[in-house]
Amino acid sequence: MSIGEFDLIARYFTRPAVARQTPGRVALGVGDDCALLQPSPGMQLAISTDMLVEGRHFLSTVDPVRLGHKALAVNLSDLAACGAKPMAFTLSLALPSVDEAWLEGFSRGMFALADEHGCELVGGDTTRGPLNISITVFGEVPPGAALLRSGAKAGDDLWVSGTLGDARLALEAFRGTLSLPAQAFVLARARMEAPSPRVALGQALRGVASAATDVSDGLLGDLSHILRASGVGARVDADAAVERIALRSMPASDIDLNIDIDMLRLCALSGGDDYELVFTAPVGAREAVERAGRDSQTAVARIGRIEAEPGVRIVDADGAALAQRFTSFDHFG
Amino acid sequence: MSIGEFDLIARYFTRPAVARQTPGRVALGVGDDCALLQPSPGMQLAISTDMLVEGRHFLSTVDPVRLGHKALAVNLSDLAACGAKPMAFTLSLALPSVDEAWLEGFSRGMFALADEHGCELVGGDTTRGPLNISITVFGEVPPGAALLRSGAKAGDDLWVSGTLGDARLALEAFRGTLSLPAQAFVLARARMEAPSPRVALGQALRGVASAATDVSDGLLGDLSHILRASGVGARVDADAAVERIALRSMPASDIDLNIDIDMLRLCALSGGDDYELVFTAPVGAREAVERAGRDSQTAVARIGRIEAEPGVRIVDADGAALAQRFTSFDHFG
Repeated sequence: MSIGEFDLIARYFTRPAVARQTPGRVALGVGDDCALLQPSPGMQLAISTDMLVEGRHFLSTVDPVRLGHKALAVNLSDLAACGAKPMAFTLSLALPSVDEAWLEGFSRGMFALADEHGCELVGGDTTRGPLNISITVFGEVPPGAALLRSGAKAGDDLWVSGTLGDARLALEAFRGTLSLPAQAFVLARARMEAPSPRVALGQALRGVASAATDVSDGLLGDLSHILRASGVGARVDADAAVERIALRSMPASDIDLNIDIDMLRLCALSGGDDYELVFTAPVGAREAVERAGRDSQTAVARIGRIEAEPGVRIVDADGAALAQRFTSFDHFG
Repeated sequence: MSIGEFDLIARYFTRPAVARQTPGRVALGVGDDCALLQPSPGMQLAISTDMLVEGRHFLSTVDPVRLGHKALAVNLSDLAACGAKPMAFTLSLALPSVDEAWLEGFSRGMFALADEHGCELVGGDTTRGPLNISITVFGEVPPGAALLRSGAKAGDDLWVSGTLGDARLALEAFRGTLSLPAQAFVLARARMEAPSPRVALGQALRGVASAATDVSDGLLGDLSHILRASGVGARVDADAAVERIALRSMPASDIDLNIDIDMLRLCALSGGDDYELVFTAPVGAREAVERAGRDSQTAVARIGRIEAEPGVRIVDADGAALAQRFTSFDHFG
């Protein structure tokens, strides 16, 4: 890009100090060769990175404000899954052209979410190229306190935060494989395009959950990472998962939605793009989990149980095994 | 990508612990939601990120081994410019398809350079999409010791490390605007495709250099960042810069090269892709700079002087002002 274009881009990603929520941990931000971060004494640094590509992680029709939100949200979701407190992030952006309206919207959506979580943009890179958004986030967590995938034990409850499946319902509506009433589509689309990373819940679950990960590729696919890392299996109540679909709790939506139960189970169990937490905790920690949910104003629900036998057994509300197959969500694969 | 493809990619970027130079600072690496890093007590964390796009930062014909090297090298060069010691990095990769030979070469080139600098891959992301390589590096530096762009003072010497202009000569040869003898082309191409980040020199210059940055977009363009941040100007000896072209010190190359002086000055002053350090230091620190060069086995040369008057004055070996205009290098723009 020309120097003029670089200046233009810089305008949207450089903010006066007064607009930033300076947490005092950023010794040097955007504008030198490196950013300098001063971690709190003794804390571990949690790092995660996610790359978003048009047509794969978002549709070309998405509102840039929501895209800016989502690009950071999917990264914050990884910090949440570790129980880390967000500190800072870097943004690398390849743009096919310099579109001021797009940059204004994208940066506004991104900074709104960043400010909500006290997470400061400390550096980045911009180049011309096919649209690509690559963010790396940094958080901090006390040594030994990070939530890992490897701590699940047979007998633990299986929990999920928030809602499941609505993002996938929106995607299926975009694809034309089902139709949604207008109001339901608006809600589902917001879940797909503007997920809420469960940052506060993740921190509240430190010392409570035995294992955790975030649900990005679908509940069953992400749960399998916990099971493999922990050397255990699970029994999952498909109908308890279906109960987590937000659209189902809209007034009279059971009738209006008119979607068959197999599709609802598919969306809840293999939906993708939920950005909720799936986690395990001992039965004795049920009250503590409920309290973590209340303290972080995030719904939590039990949807199954960890078992010693490897693999996943999917059952209905009556405990009967389901024959339906569920494959992992591969975004817009 | 399908699950099988993900496994394939993971194979090239996950190494057994024995192959890693485990520095004991990485508490948790690839394979959970976040990597966990334990910075040394009291140290500041230096962070930088660079995104490489095909056709812009590298040619499609590049050897994947060299591309893996270069993708990490340009990031390490930013740590060098801050005087930071490399610790770890993340890699996000968008690939149009899964090409095993390419992945094998790319990862081999990347890990060879990573091992040379004790820098561990701690996380990443892979997705299908137009080829895009986004790396974020982490280093550490004692508080207050980082080399910044803002410390240059009138009267300081202007220094540059290593060699200048050879990468641009290779690019011009690829473009067909000049021709190089075969042996010279091999050398120039290696400078373009496999730059050497000046990591050891950067650390040796802590407490010695007054300001520093790395030369990625061409000497004059990158120098201008120091001048702006420091509120000063500079006088640059174009012929001292031309002396830094490595091809010129090949036996009899002055005759063989047969490239006019304007082109040589352009390549040295606005070349791009050099990944050297340009830095300033008080006149009284000349011996200390020479020692830092010797200790890090990196050539250093004086090519000018910082002046109070803003702007850059380019002169020849006799101190006469040059009329030639130099614009900043914009990669393959």
